[in-house]
Amino acid sequence: MEIEPATLGKARLFARGWSWLKALLPARKFKKVVDAAKCIKQLGQDDSRRVIHCLKVGLALTFVSLLYYCKPLYEVFGVSGIWAVITVVLVLEFTVGATISKGLNRGFATLFAGALAIGTEHFSRLFDRKAEPIVLGVLLFLLATTSSFTRFIPRIKAKYDYGVMIFILTFSLVSVSGYRTENLLEVAHQRLSAIAIGGATCIIMSVFVCPVWAGKDLHKLTASNLEKLANYLEGFGGEYFQTDPDHEEEGISTITAASNSKLDDKAVLLQGYKSVLNPKNTEESLASFARWEPGHGGFHFRHPWNQYLKIGALARQCAHRIEVLDGYINSDIQAPLEIRNKIRESSTKMCLESSQALRALASSIKTMTDPSAADPHVKNSETSINDLKIALESASKLENVDLLAIIPIASVASILTEITKCVWRISELVHELSLLAYFKSAATSDQREPGSGLHRGSVKPVLDDDSDRTVTIIVQATNVKIVDHQYDPSNTDSLENRIPDPAVKSVRLEER
Amino acid sequence: MEIEPATLGKARLFARGWSWLKALLPARKFKKVVDAAKCIKQLGQDDSRRVIHCLKVGLALTFVSLLYYCKPLYEVFGVSGIWAVITVVLVLEFTVGATISKGLNRGFATLFAGALAIGTEHFSRLFDRKAEPIVLGVLLFLLATTSSFTRFIPRIKAKYDYGVMIFILTFSLVSVSGYRTENLLEVAHQRLSAIAIGGATCIIMSVFVCPVWAGKDLHKLTASNLEKLANYLEGFGGEYFQTDPDHEEEGISTITAASNSKLDDKAVLLQGYKSVLNPKNTEESLASFARWEPGHGGFHFRHPWNQYLKIGALARQCAHRIEVLDGYINSDIQAPLEIRNKIRESSTKMCLESSQALRALASSIKTMTDPSAADPHVKNSETSINDLKIALESASKLENVDLLAIIPIASVASILTEITKCVWRISELVHELSLLAYFKSAATSDQREPGSGLHRGSVKPVLDDDSDRTVTIIVQATNVKIVDHQYDPSNTDSLENRIPDPAVKSVRLEER
Repeated sequence: MEIEPATLGKARLFARGWSWLKALLPARKFKKVVDAAKCIKQLGQDDSRRVIHCLKVGLALTFVSLLYYCKPLYEVFGVSGIWAVITVVLVLEFTVGATISKGLNRGFATLFAGALAIGTEHFSRLFDRKAEPIVLGVLLFLLATTSSFTRFIPRIKAKYDYGVMIFILTFSLVSVSGYRTENLLEVAHQRLSAIAIGGATCIIMSVFVCPVWAGKDLHKLTASNLEKLANYLEGFGGEYFQTDPDHEEEGISTITAASNSKLDDKAVLLQGYKSVLNPKNTEESLASFARWEPGHGGFHFRHPWNQYLKIGALARQCAHRIEVLDGYINSDIQAPLEIRNKIRESSTKMCLESSQALRALASSIKTMTDPSAADPHVKNSETSINDLKIALESASKLENVDLLAIIPIASVASILTEITKCVWRISELVHELSLLAYFKSAATSDQREPGSGLHRGSVKPVLDDDSDRTVTIIVQATNVKIVDHQYDPSNTDSLENRIPDPAVKSVRLEER
Repeated sequence: MEIEPATLGKARLFARGWSWLKALLPARKFKKVVDAAKCIKQLGQDDSRRVIHCLKVGLALTFVSLLYYCKPLYEVFGVSGIWAVITVVLVLEFTVGATISKGLNRGFATLFAGALAIGTEHFSRLFDRKAEPIVLGVLLFLLATTSSFTRFIPRIKAKYDYGVMIFILTFSLVSVSGYRTENLLEVAHQRLSAIAIGGATCIIMSVFVCPVWAGKDLHKLTASNLEKLANYLEGFGGEYFQTDPDHEEEGISTITAASNSKLDDKAVLLQGYKSVLNPKNTEESLASFARWEPGHGGFHFRHPWNQYLKIGALARQCAHRIEVLDGYINSDIQAPLEIRNKIRESSTKMCLESSQALRALASSIKTMTDPSAADPHVKNSETSINDLKIALESASKLENVDLLAIIPIASVASILTEITKCVWRISELVHELSLLAYFKSAATSDQREPGSGLHRGSVKPVLDDDSDRTVTIIVQATNVKIVDHQYDPSNTDSLENRIPDPAVKSVRLEER
């Protein structure tokens, strides 16, 4: 293959530039720069929406700067046009919910604070010119102090912190600058329109140009967290019970580079649960942004986002138990093989069933279909708890068994049981979610033929908040599959107590 | 006691006003208002520094508004004085570290972005008037896009997120408004000085008027987290092993309102560990603010804040284990009394020793003294692990023991052992902290008499970061107590792997 002289020349030039750059920087720093560049590239590749977001920021800023650059627009807005620029920089966030929340907070806070400041200004003009700044100063002090305090109130901090800050900012700006401005109303009007234009640009940009929905992210995060737990449970059985010495030796003799990398992959898969341990803040902020988002692809405006937080809390509890369980894989004290073999089958089955239940729940969330596919696995895990008990009992009847040797395996069994119970609760919550969020019945998604015995009717939950928290579902069809979903209030297990009051205690079905 | 008519009149007036207010609002809303007021009062009482912070905000704002109200000052700064007000609203934060971090970020970002924008402005003036906005727009787009992207880089997000935002903001402001401003340099100079005045006001206000140090808060939080774990462990032994039926019945018969409230107190004390479960973000943000703080009361500028994060991570792990342990207190399946009695003594001792070790470590952190008071408890807990093993062994030799009945108690023993090991690691980390942060030796705090066998010498750790991470402590005195503190690198326990590389691997003592 021949290379054209021009290309060759360019390649040489590039090589020369590269070596020049290398010579310029000490080897260490050069490596750092290359690493940083790689890290940045990785960031973009991991989530291309980040790159799109940056382009959106650039575009929105360039767009609102037209208020200054276009003479006709400049004549309307004057220097106040700069407020559109400020608004875009401060309001345009990564997710739609965050942008809308900041935009509306900013809009209303500006409006309210501006009105109040103009009122204050008029009030202070009742006094003579010398007393005016004193009156203004005292009012500013009082307002700034009290508003700052509201930012410590948890409920306000969670939802309106930015709004309160903008309120203080705008009030100070208008009341202070109002002292030296004659045509205050006109300036206020100009600024408000500029801010409205900036805010509208942000909201339009974030909703219509490649939107990033916080709600969708929360939805996906919940499903993927359940999947990570499922991965661990699926792998745990094999990992813990396979440490059979013969097996190990055999394994070592056949280890190749390929199987080594396979082991690494497995380890990564097993360690996935760790990311479930600490995402409380992420989930909470996603949920709080999601509440501001309009309906989008399957999520209506009042989608039960709280339910995701409840599922997340349980998933985290499950992950805590898994963390403790994980300590036993590498524990020095291992139970004798004989006993491990006794309980291997039932434990592995329990792990697998729990894992499959979690996987079915995750897929039900992902596809927004009825989670009943998880039910048989939940049932099987119930029976496997009994199997495990029986296996342990028979193990205890083995002769020459040292209790000390049984302790770790007894602990593993006990924690596995706790995890399985946790999975049941998660299943309950996902069932609730499927009702609250109108998940499609599995039949529809399977595209069952008509007449297969299942009719879909219009299902309309009527939430009755003040009474005994009963959801009445009125079904306008006959032959419906009756979903009876009931919490047992007498079950005051320790786990139950830690979950926030479930919103729905029972679901009644009425036929019309 | 007689009441004066005037007071009586006032009281009547107050009562009338109260009932009028009550009549005005529906009963429900009235209750809500009263509850909100109580909640606000509680917020102030819980941490009076909040109230002081609000007063500081009011004061700082009123102070910088003088730039507008005072004619001589207004003549210097002009309308740019408003930037001092904006800076105060945005920069003055609750802790000193947060304020300094935001202030410096804002200052440098403004300086840098302003200079760059003025350069851009001059560059664009090379083109003709019609091409100028296009050139400016393209540059603005490029800069906004790339800077926005840097906000996704975790290291920049953690420390300089606010700075990058201000950089984009200032660059847009100056480059856009520069197009219509003739005396750009003068405006830039005025704004910069106003921002400097605002920033300086914030920093002075936060450092010198009732300062709230993030570092001190982190320090206290770490100590109190250890104390909460200690409280749980102290209570656990009593709680778990006391559920002896005779004891319970006796308890029920003598329950009074007072003892009930005592039980509530105990439950609150036991549940304290829950707050240790999820404070990762709080700790991280406190540590990142603390790094900006100048030396204050015992904490020098480069105090090892990272060490607190490591201790916090281990405390959280310990709390996860406690959460699992807590599930066994209310478990339906309880081990038979006979077996529980067998291991009661050793378990209770283990809990108590771990708890006392944690308490000693917490107090060492609190008082910044040598944590060697914890060492005997750590040692005792080591022997109690063996005692527990022996007790379990003897329990297993009891006749007619059902293995199933032993499982929960075996699990409890196993988790308790894990917790105790966790406490050892915490003790190691606190010892490291005491070296890195120059904690006083216990002798000084006890005010031992001279000649009691312990000489204090000037101890100067020399951190050698690039080599094998060895801290060499050169002691310029004889007869010193030799603190040998060494990690065992062969110990690749699962727990160890989860802790970030300890900074110090061994401490050598040399006598000169």
